[in-house]
Amino acid sequence: MALTVVGSVAFDSIATPFGEHQRVLGGSAVHFSLAASFFAQVRLVGVVGDDFGEAERAVLKRRGIDIRDLEVVPGGETFFWRGHYDYDLNTAKTLETHLNVFADFEPKLSEASRSSEALFLGNIQPELQRRVREQCPNASFSALDSMNYWIENDRDSVVAAIGLVDAALLNDAEVRELTGEPNLCRAARRIREWGPSLVVVKQGEYGAALFSEDGFFSLPAYPLENVVDPTGAGDSFAGGFVGFLAAHAPGELTEELLRAAVVYGSTLASFNVEEFGTERVSRLTFPEIEKRFAEFRRMTHFEHVDLPRLVG
Amino acid sequence: MALTVVGSVAFDSIATPFGEHQRVLGGSAVHFSLAASFFAQVRLVGVVGDDFGEAERAVLKRRGIDIRDLEVVPGGETFFWRGHYDYDLNTAKTLETHLNVFADFEPKLSEASRSSEALFLGNIQPELQRRVREQCPNASFSALDSMNYWIENDRDSVVAAIGLVDAALLNDAEVRELTGEPNLCRAARRIREWGPSLVVVKQGEYGAALFSEDGFFSLPAYPLENVVDPTGAGDSFAGGFVGFLAAHAPGELTEELLRAAVVYGSTLASFNVEEFGTERVSRLTFPEIEKRFAEFRRMTHFEHVDLPRLVG
Repeated sequence: MALTVVGSVAFDSIATPFGEHQRVLGGSAVHFSLAASFFAQVRLVGVVGDDFGEAERAVLKRRGIDIRDLEVVPGGETFFWRGHYDYDLNTAKTLETHLNVFADFEPKLSEASRSSEALFLGNIQPELQRRVREQCPNASFSALDSMNYWIENDRDSVVAAIGLVDAALLNDAEVRELTGEPNLCRAARRIREWGPSLVVVKQGEYGAALFSEDGFFSLPAYPLENVVDPTGAGDSFAGGFVGFLAAHAPGELTEELLRAAVVYGSTLASFNVEEFGTERVSRLTFPEIEKRFAEFRRMTHFEHVDLPRLVG
Repeated sequence: MALTVVGSVAFDSIATPFGEHQRVLGGSAVHFSLAASFFAQVRLVGVVGDDFGEAERAVLKRRGIDIRDLEVVPGGETFFWRGHYDYDLNTAKTLETHLNVFADFEPKLSEASRSSEALFLGNIQPELQRRVREQCPNASFSALDSMNYWIENDRDSVVAAIGLVDAALLNDAEVRELTGEPNLCRAARRIREWGPSLVVVKQGEYGAALFSEDGFFSLPAYPLENVVDPTGAGDSFAGGFVGFLAAHAPGELTEELLRAAVVYGSTLASFNVEEFGTERVSRLTFPEIEKRFAEFRRMTHFEHVDLPRLVG
């Protein structure tokens, strides 16, 4: 099944305690697309400048990603972000952001992108997310991401965009900020009242939680001794999650499928952070994904054990 | 099987956004004992003043807790703590601490307490933890808790105490501070090198992780819409975890048992936070515990699902 994604395409300069990489391929739509490409035919809608070269295109094409809607602005420069992480790799510190051609991004969807069965609205202006959603009436499954900037500056529009999708994928700070509700269960319930039947809360090193019709599912993050670069982990999660569901669209999204999607999302996120930028995911194989899925099962499985003698 | 616990017995005055309670029964040994009493014969070693009355003793006795080693200092006052929590219930703000009789606490163990098959060293001075450990040579399973105060002021002694037990139960900030290692997997590995075969990392609203010989197990926290008072959640977790293992001592601690112990620990912690102080756990029933254990299974269970058609 086809999956359209709209979001940022960027060059990232990233410093972590494990090294420094200049102008690596990044952006929400890129990380998402690479992760989703293991499950679905991905169509990327984005914008770049003419500094975006064949090497970058090749990374996307090798994974079979359709980039016909990757607009090139002649004379323009691609979105550039510079950030660094301390030993606590949870929070990125932004040093420079140059929106460049992304500042005036107006997503242009080809007939193919408009006809996809699934849609992911990456973290862009919520007004643009809504317009793209309306252009994709065939998408039987749609999801979005957002960020604190839009929640703080354009909350009503974020809420309206959320009302148009099946799944909101947000991190826990965003969920709390958006709803003004510190309790995650109540916050997720409120967001589900706005429209989406699913709320996925990304919790970084702690994993992810799914709030659905059926209730609650939670999965820890894969334990890694070497987290090298967390940039794009949330987008890779979204790519695995939405990509897996897109592969099953337009069928019914059973709780079993939704839970497996969370595990695939967490799997892709865990690979993403093992190396800088897109390095790890761009050379990932499907058997590696399946192996880690199985490891997730082993590390979360438990059985009830009777007491030898009931005391209480 | 019998389980000796040494730790604080206190009166707590707690204010949360959901109310305020004055001088409720608290302290690490109390919360631990009540939780553990569902699984094992608990012997509490602690100290109180003569403001500790029959009502407080009755709460412990009703759960069958042996308090013969609860020393009373005539004319003394029981450890008193006053704290409050904001809407983000993760962190307690301490407003007053009066150690009172706890300042000169020197645990005195009866023959019965010394002969227990299991031992929990609650959060007290690490030097005292070591001395108690040495008085209990029959304990085939022993565990301890600590806190940032001891880690910052007496780190070597904390490390030495950890070296004497089978399991260290710490929260994630303590694990990182103790080892100077931000990566939780590496931090847990280092602590295991000091002696204990098990490291349990308590992660508050995110759940708990177990690092053992067999690797890694992780469980999310039980999702609650109404967390009323988090005081004692970590001690209740420890009580459920150690209590369940004590029930199986001195048998082999299989990975299956250890994982079930984490679930029982999380179950007891989840009940603890539903009401103030010891209110909820002191009237808890074993069927309620078993029901929540089953809910933990439902909310963490997932299966592998094949792709309809392999794309990657």
